[in-house]
Amino acid sequence: MSEDAGRARGAVPRRDDDYSAQAAAERRRFAQEHTGAALAHVGHFSVDPAELAGNIENFTGVAQVPIGLAGPLLIDGEHAQGEFYIPLATTEGTLVASYNRGMRLLGECGGVRTTVVEQAMQRAPVFSFGDARQARAFGVWVDENYAGIKAAAEETTWSGRLIGIEKYSVGAMKYLRFNFTTADAAGQNMVGKATLAACEWIRALYPGGIDYVLSGNIDTDKKHSQLNVINTRGRRVIAEAVIPNATMQRIMGVDTATLFRSRQLSNVGTLISGACNNGSHSANGITAMFIATGQDVANVAESHAAIVYTQLRDNGDYYWSITLPSLILATYGGGTGLPTQKECLELLGCYGSGKADKLAEIVAATVLAGETSLGSAILAGDWVSSHDALGRNRP
Amino acid sequence: MSEDAGRARGAVPRRDDDYSAQAAAERRRFAQEHTGAALAHVGHFSVDPAELAGNIENFTGVAQVPIGLAGPLLIDGEHAQGEFYIPLATTEGTLVASYNRGMRLLGECGGVRTTVVEQAMQRAPVFSFGDARQARAFGVWVDENYAGIKAAAEETTWSGRLIGIEKYSVGAMKYLRFNFTTADAAGQNMVGKATLAACEWIRALYPGGIDYVLSGNIDTDKKHSQLNVINTRGRRVIAEAVIPNATMQRIMGVDTATLFRSRQLSNVGTLISGACNNGSHSANGITAMFIATGQDVANVAESHAAIVYTQLRDNGDYYWSITLPSLILATYGGGTGLPTQKECLELLGCYGSGKADKLAEIVAATVLAGETSLGSAILAGDWVSSHDALGRNRP
Amino acid sequence: MSEDAGRARGAVPRRDDDYSAQAAAERRRFAQEHTGAALAHVGHFSVDPAELAGNIENFTGVAQVPIGLAGPLLIDGEHAQGEFYIPLATTEGTLVASYNRGMRLLGECGGVRTTVVEQAMQRAPVFSFGDARQARAFGVWVDENYAGIKAAAEETTWSGRLIGIEKYSVGAMKYLRFNFTTADAAGQNMVGKATLAACEWIRALYPGGIDYVLSGNIDTDKKHSQLNVINTRGRRVIAEAVIPNATMQRIMGVDTATLFRSRQLSNVGTLISGACNNGSHSANGITAMFIATGQDVANVAESHAAIVYTQLRDNGDYYWSITLPSLILATYGGGTGLPTQKECLELLGCYGSGKADKLAEIVAATVLAGETSLGSAILAGDWVSSHDALGRNRP
Amino acid sequence: MSEDAGRARGAVPRRDDDYSAQAAAERRRFAQEHTGAALAHVGHFSVDPAELAGNIENFTGVAQVPIGLAGPLLIDGEHAQGEFYIPLATTEGTLVASYNRGMRLLGECGGVRTTVVEQAMQRAPVFSFGDARQARAFGVWVDENYAGIKAAAEETTWSGRLIGIEKYSVGAMKYLRFNFTTADAAGQNMVGKATLAACEWIRALYPGGIDYVLSGNIDTDKKHSQLNVINTRGRRVIAEAVIPNATMQRIMGVDTATLFRSRQLSNVGTLISGACNNGSHSANGITAMFIATGQDVANVAESHAAIVYTQLRDNGDYYWSITLPSLILATYGGGTGLPTQKECLELLGCYGSGKADKLAEIVAATVLAGETSLGSAILAGDWVSSHDALGRNRP
Repeated sequence: MSEDAGRARGAVPRRDDDYSAQAAAERRRFAQEHTGAALAHVGHFSVDPAELAGNIENFTGVAQVPIGLAGPLLIDGEHAQGEFYIPLATTEGTLVASYNRGMRLLGECGGVRTTVVEQAMQRAPVFSFGDARQARAFGVWVDENYAGIKAAAEETTWSGRLIGIEKYSVGAMKYLRFNFTTADAAGQNMVGKATLAACEWIRALYPGGIDYVLSGNIDTDKKHSQLNVINTRGRRVIAEAVIPNATMQRIMGVDTATLFRSRQLSNVGTLISGACNNGSHSANGITAMFIATGQDVANVAESHAAIVYTQLRDNGDYYWSITLPSLILATYGGGTGLPTQKECLELLGCYGSGKADKLAEIVAATVLAGETSLGSAILAGDWVSSHDALGRNRP
Repeated sequence: MSEDAGRARGAVPRRDDDYSAQAAAERRRFAQEHTGAALAHVGHFSVDPAELAGNIENFTGVAQVPIGLAGPLLIDGEHAQGEFYIPLATTEGTLVASYNRGMRLLGECGGVRTTVVEQAMQRAPVFSFGDARQARAFGVWVDENYAGIKAAAEETTWSGRLIGIEKYSVGAMKYLRFNFTTADAAGQNMVGKATLAACEWIRALYPGGIDYVLSGNIDTDKKHSQLNVINTRGRRVIAEAVIPNATMQRIMGVDTATLFRSRQLSNVGTLISGACNNGSHSANGITAMFIATGQDVANVAESHAAIVYTQLRDNGDYYWSITLPSLILATYGGGTGLPTQKECLELLGCYGSGKADKLAEIVAATVLAGETSLGSAILAGDWVSSHDALGRNRP
Repeated sequence: MSEDAGRARGAVPRRDDDYSAQAAAERRRFAQEHTGAALAHVGHFSVDPAELAGNIENFTGVAQVPIGLAGPLLIDGEHAQGEFYIPLATTEGTLVASYNRGMRLLGECGGVRTTVVEQAMQRAPVFSFGDARQARAFGVWVDENYAGIKAAAEETTWSGRLIGIEKYSVGAMKYLRFNFTTADAAGQNMVGKATLAACEWIRALYPGGIDYVLSGNIDTDKKHSQLNVINTRGRRVIAEAVIPNATMQRIMGVDTATLFRSRQLSNVGTLISGACNNGSHSANGITAMFIATGQDVANVAESHAAIVYTQLRDNGDYYWSITLPSLILATYGGGTGLPTQKECLELLGCYGSGKADKLAEIVAATVLAGETSLGSAILAGDWVSSHDALGRNRP
Repeated sequence: MSEDAGRARGAVPRRDDDYSAQAAAERRRFAQEHTGAALAHVGHFSVDPAELAGNIENFTGVAQVPIGLAGPLLIDGEHAQGEFYIPLATTEGTLVASYNRGMRLLGECGGVRTTVVEQAMQRAPVFSFGDARQARAFGVWVDENYAGIKAAAEETTWSGRLIGIEKYSVGAMKYLRFNFTTADAAGQNMVGKATLAACEWIRALYPGGIDYVLSGNIDTDKKHSQLNVINTRGRRVIAEAVIPNATMQRIMGVDTATLFRSRQLSNVGTLISGACNNGSHSANGITAMFIATGQDVANVAESHAAIVYTQLRDNGDYYWSITLPSLILATYGGGTGLPTQKECLELLGCYGSGKADKLAEIVAATVLAGETSLGSAILAGDWVSSHDALGRNRP
């Protein structure tokens, strides 16, 4: 995807030392010349531009996104255990306060139990044939040659492992969906490369040759899909807590029976609207943590899907769970090693290899905290008033 | 949603001068004491903490998110006209280069035609009754009292205007969905406040009183839904371009007939997987612009829904359109006034009142640029190789 | 859609007196000659072939579908009041017994309250333009010319009334969705004709002419869609009942608390699977009534969508509601006047004009009866055993 | 699900010889007494009531549904080969003529290629635990004990075979979805019984016992779901044909380029509306064949889902495929052995063991015929006029 040198007049300037403070400054000057906008604050950063190769092209400066600290969040996970302080990067007033409140509630209830139940990252090529029978025959061949396909795919990576291939038939096509585990990387590029290798291996061996496109749009990369909810993309993580009625009333000002009645209404609302989430606002917590910790924030598209399931127990206790079926994140690669991002990961004890499950648990616990707070605020009547008090929303 | 003073041991420290460099520094020290993680880079910022009231609580520092400049992007909009340089805040290598390439293509084809076709922001309370007939009667009453409801809602805001109320019946409930225009604000809080006022007006007047919850989860705030695709949330914006085959081949290395065949496969993939977007990766461009320009980035959840529609014309020209049915953004309020965010908006000529339609057009044009680039790369075979060259993705 | 006379060898024979016993017999002989299959029972019917013009082409005989009588079903509707005996045409053992059991339960609880809350039938043309702005301008023109469009549409029908036009923008297209009330007819053809007239009126008047297709597939005729659930197709009908725990236990062998817990699980299952119905089996009752009463049975596709909402009240009572958002039926036209079909409608007091709301209420009440029975059977453990006892299902 | 003897006043009468002409006649008299409606035609039937045990309870008579014969339909299947005459039971005028026209078109193009690519029938229990980790551990146990589970399930059936168990985690639950092949039966009851046996086997062996419900609503029985589209329910069948432009124009009055343009619009309409079928009206043909051949007609709910995929080839040929991902049918059991139903199956050479794949192919080919006819009629402008000419739809 190379940019050719001889660009039309007006191209953003490049230099030999393109990842340098000078190059960035030149681009800011260029921008100011063309638009009149000074990029003074954008030019204020501590990251070394030389570190940014692989993360950005045409580096010009940084967005400063405020980070608020919430917590402590008490987690009873398999990977995350104890109290955590959560860095939330956002510009939306009330968000940190609201999550903080939920964390306090959950802390008083013994914390959040978190469980990662599955992991998978996909690339999904589509193979076209002359008719449906040829496509079906190809599917059989893929099953018979799974070992070879797996070997070809895994040759391109030391951490990715092919764990299965879904197969879907439509017309004369066979859609394959390669599922990999990708350790602590999010893995979209890793699996792209591995799947390409697998497809080329298939192309070389499949009798009569093969016609394929590397993505048939069922990956489903950077977009929500029911398929993600069903078959998991990234990590499937579950956060659970049991909240006594008295605690709920004291901190949130609402009783658990009212919450449970409201849950029924929310479920119906979700079914009417065809929404991908019967909870309140998982996207808020996920986004704020993703920005802070150097995730590919566009993955909020997939990651915000959620299923809330609750129980009102006979003693008034409220069991509250949220399942995130397609939480995509990394503690390695991508933006995780950049300065502020790495610091925020370190704040969570989540930087580097072997930490992605832990980070997934912390994100899920954070999301649950946010659910308890907003869900209660809607019922207790302080949803609007708290935004009035804490937000920057003029009438 | 106030936090009470007497917190458990370990609460994040607060001060009287809470929006100050000192308070932020104290929280960084606190974090380091509890976690061992230094927040040195997080503490490097040029934003004045005093400006952050209304945007964040427990301000501790900033995330530095690299911005790359793409462009020029030639737009033939009703609000955005001419060439624009697009600030993209991301840590994903290849993204800026890829969008840049698409912008070059579109620039050579006369640019992107952009059109904002609708605007609406919703809050959706649910009213519960004894049975379905009472709920139906309430719906009739709402219609008859629309003027009063509208007046009550609009009294809370000088820029929001109630433009209609959707009504959905399930069981003994009536779900209402208040639609407002919100000028240049995203407006979620504005419409929350206005809808609360409307509901309280209803409560005061409705014979026999009323039982409602301010959100029945069909808003559908911070989550994708089919309802958003159908009825618009935020702005419904369309970007269109016509690309000659020769230009496509020269810049993208793929012919338009191949692209059109691939479009058919992607449409089928979308139908199989139940995805909310039959395009490639709108979330990438939207997220990068949202971070740069101070949007509520969690709105990527709703905003990334898209419908791609293309034509292969007899002369080989490729008409390529993308419709964003629920693009939520602002040029006023929220994070738009923070230093780097404001600079990026000014770079686009989009800061302040009367600019939201323009920004929506620019985002849509950017998204289309990204579609042309990734869609082509998948077919031309440089998708994986370009990430290898430009990305930070270790095997 | 005329069939031309000179058919290839083997065409099904036609005669001048095509709607006659002789023509039907000739076709049965023809079938036997070509396939060896005697159609003796198919040829046993009491309907007069001469009555069948307008209902079938190439009439050859009849399918005899067994009818079982269930009931009494006690209904507290606005149109249906009192006890009804329900004709269910099916070949699935257990179905009649199961619905019957549910009717008994509901009868002991004071019956089913039924409410028709909306009615609409759609035809949805799509108009194509040069770009999105032209499409948007067209939408404005449609609003401005609504009165003329309405008049043109209604000129084709004495019972159909245009009640609104939904408008959806994608790319350079404007999808319109014409909503009509159609009195006691299902109305698909009526609204097709009326919408065609409206479109031709538009074509004649719209400056510069117009390019449209009469269906852009958002009608959404003969298929389930989320849009139907949201905006109603046919009738939106709600059935409600309140069942004391003791009655539930005595008749169904399950307590209401267990049912309510199971409801939570079913809701989650619906969200996982992306199903159009969080209830059990509305399609069973609807189909059996549709066959018996001469409905267009293919409308089961749309009609089986449902939303179940229940409450477990403090005294153990169980409020059980089901909302059918797109129940399409008729008491006039189509197959309703054929002999057995008419008799079954008369059995319900639903034949002819002014009866469709009543029939809709009876169908909804029947569906609720089926829900209570199957929902309980799954929990009480007699689901499988009853099918073993009553069904024709060999291992 | 036994009905107790001592029914309230008004229960539908039962007799010792309940499956007899006398019992049916008594019920018709009963109905007439209570409603005034004579059931004369309903009482006209040739089926022997004694044959109906296992198919219906409270047998009262029959619905006579007119059958029209369409064809010949030329099929190039793996199970169905040659020309077939298709019995369509419907009361909707135009339907038989329209399908007939499509069959003529396809006959002139070499017929329809049909392929059954998958088969599966499901029952889907949900198991509840104390928390998500216990649920996850249970999933592992299920995998480890698959052989035992399979043996327990298959002990209940001689034709059903367990081919896999899908597993989905939400909260503290594990949803299992047992997939069986069921030979020539539709198999819903067979798999219910087998899954119950498997669950009881699990209950007996699982350490600490187990709490489950036999259906967690992801089967998804008698309702459309995205999961069915993805993972197949019943049979996944594909019908394909290649239609020269000249033939299309001669018979259908529309050229293939116009059809292909319209296909793009229909795809978009499907995405807007969230419909389960981007084709025209599969439900029509499926329903008419289901009634004629003794299928469980309620399965139209699941069976009408479809994905249309077409190509416009350089020579103007039109490749037209339709994929039915969840076509549920039987040639054995249920209503297939009843007199008229059996005759219609014999007409197709599809009665009895080993014929279900053949019937599936014929249904799919019929559906494709209907698609070509309606799809063309909408464009050629004879959609409305043909219903006017052939239908019973008064204005």
